[in-house]
Amino acid sequence: MQTVKVIKIGGNVVDDPEKLQRFLRDFAALEGPKVLVHGGGKIATAISKGLGIETRMIGGRRVTDAETLRIVTMVYAGLINKNIVAALQNEGCNALGLCGADGGLIRSKRRPARPVDYGFVGDPAGFGLDTAVALIDGGLVPVVAPITYDPENGSLLNTNADTVAQTVAVGLAGRYSVELVFCFEKRGVLRDVNDDDSVIPEIGPALYERLKADGVVADGMLPKLDNAFKAIASGVKNVVICAAERLSMPGYGGTTLCN
Amino acid sequence: MQTVKVIKIGGNVVDDPEKLQRFLRDFAALEGPKVLVHGGGKIATAISKGLGIETRMIGGRRVTDAETLRIVTMVYAGLINKNIVAALQNEGCNALGLCGADGGLIRSKRRPARPVDYGFVGDPAGFGLDTAVALIDGGLVPVVAPITYDPENGSLLNTNADTVAQTVAVGLAGRYSVELVFCFEKRGVLRDVNDDDSVIPEIGPALYERLKADGVVADGMLPKLDNAFKAIASGVKNVVICAAERLSMPGYGGTTLCN
Repeated sequence: MQTVKVIKIGGNVVDDPEKLQRFLRDFAALEGPKVLVHGGGKIATAISKGLGIETRMIGGRRVTDAETLRIVTMVYAGLINKNIVAALQNEGCNALGLCGADGGLIRSKRRPARPVDYGFVGDPAGFGLDTAVALIDGGLVPVVAPITYDPENGSLLNTNADTVAQTVAVGLAGRYSVELVFCFEKRGVLRDVNDDDSVIPEIGPALYERLKADGVVADGMLPKLDNAFKAIASGVKNVVICAAERLSMPGYGGTTLCN
Repeated sequence: MQTVKVIKIGGNVVDDPEKLQRFLRDFAALEGPKVLVHGGGKIATAISKGLGIETRMIGGRRVTDAETLRIVTMVYAGLINKNIVAALQNEGCNALGLCGADGGLIRSKRRPARPVDYGFVGDPAGFGLDTAVALIDGGLVPVVAPITYDPENGSLLNTNADTVAQTVAVGLAGRYSVELVFCFEKRGVLRDVNDDDSVIPEIGPALYERLKADGVVADGMLPKLDNAFKAIASGVKNVVICAAERLSMPGYGGTTLCN
């Protein structure tokens, strides 16, 4: 079975031109079929502010009203996505950018308005495998922006990029051997949160239980790893958590989660 | 040989939500493989103005400086492109939006800075046939925004949508039997410019020469038709000029140019 790598970068890399360029060079150099999923970053907030559109937050999360949906659509699926594609083309990587509406790649369901109405925000509810296969087997490298399509209401929805990456990985897992790599600000799961060199290279379900019991894995790392093991349970071969600047290292210099 | 329709709509349709929705319904209903190329419209100017970016024009043409390139990239390839894709998905048409950078679909060359420097503006210089074939043969309907990719400078460029449509049509002509349809504000080539019902249904090279000699075809219609006949000379089977609202009529109720 052919291996496909699904790599996710967050908004903090997208916001830093130097980090982004280095990451894209490393991504372009990865061998074999691959998919990039990118987050949004702060450009949307800056542009909203420039246009006099107030960014409303509830509990630290952005509320996507109709105006904000227009902004994130143009910034994520237009400005960021197309500049990443151009940079990858420049590195000899045949990138093709898309959002969840394109070819029905990521269909989503709008979140209920209660208890909190986040507006035009949704969670993935379907994957366009045929579209993904046409691109990947056609030698193209999909670059996916975190905007999805809600067929029930016929509208675009703002969607968490981690969830989009996981949906792509799980969706491809029936057809390919899939490796899912989350690039984030730390080097991986650390034994000592203050020591960058204490990366745990591999975690299986048994070790994960021990690490949780020992309190080594806690706080924000818990939902991330729960998600990762869910992806593995859904057929993804392994999931890696690593730093964006270590993509060219063997095993990405991060933590590999496997079953 | 399979027939592929390449349809171009201009910014005036993009700017009018009702006209656009009707057009997209008719486009979705067209049988067989097809490609949509869309223009920009006035939204980019409004957003530039909102952000306090001055739109500079020279001789009626927009100057695309670095800031304006960011705006047109996000508006054309993001906001407009993804909303068209969502509307087509809503009509059951498996649309996939892209710009010229995606899959190297439209490579371009920046216009020389002399005699007039229009900034980040370029003309098509290459077509990504493999990308187009992967999409079309994969059952997808490409929706193309008029932003292209200049490999020499590694940058995106603003490009005329008529030229993009022609490049797509000519590029596909070696592989498919191609019909190129330009939707514009008139119903076609009119015998009497004041009579909408005087559409000339078909024009070949000989009739074209007579119409020019008689002054029936003049002014802005000349470069449009010269371009159309150039496409035919490059292998496009026929070119139709018609009104956007007549796409569901036989022969699009317009003028067909053939050889």
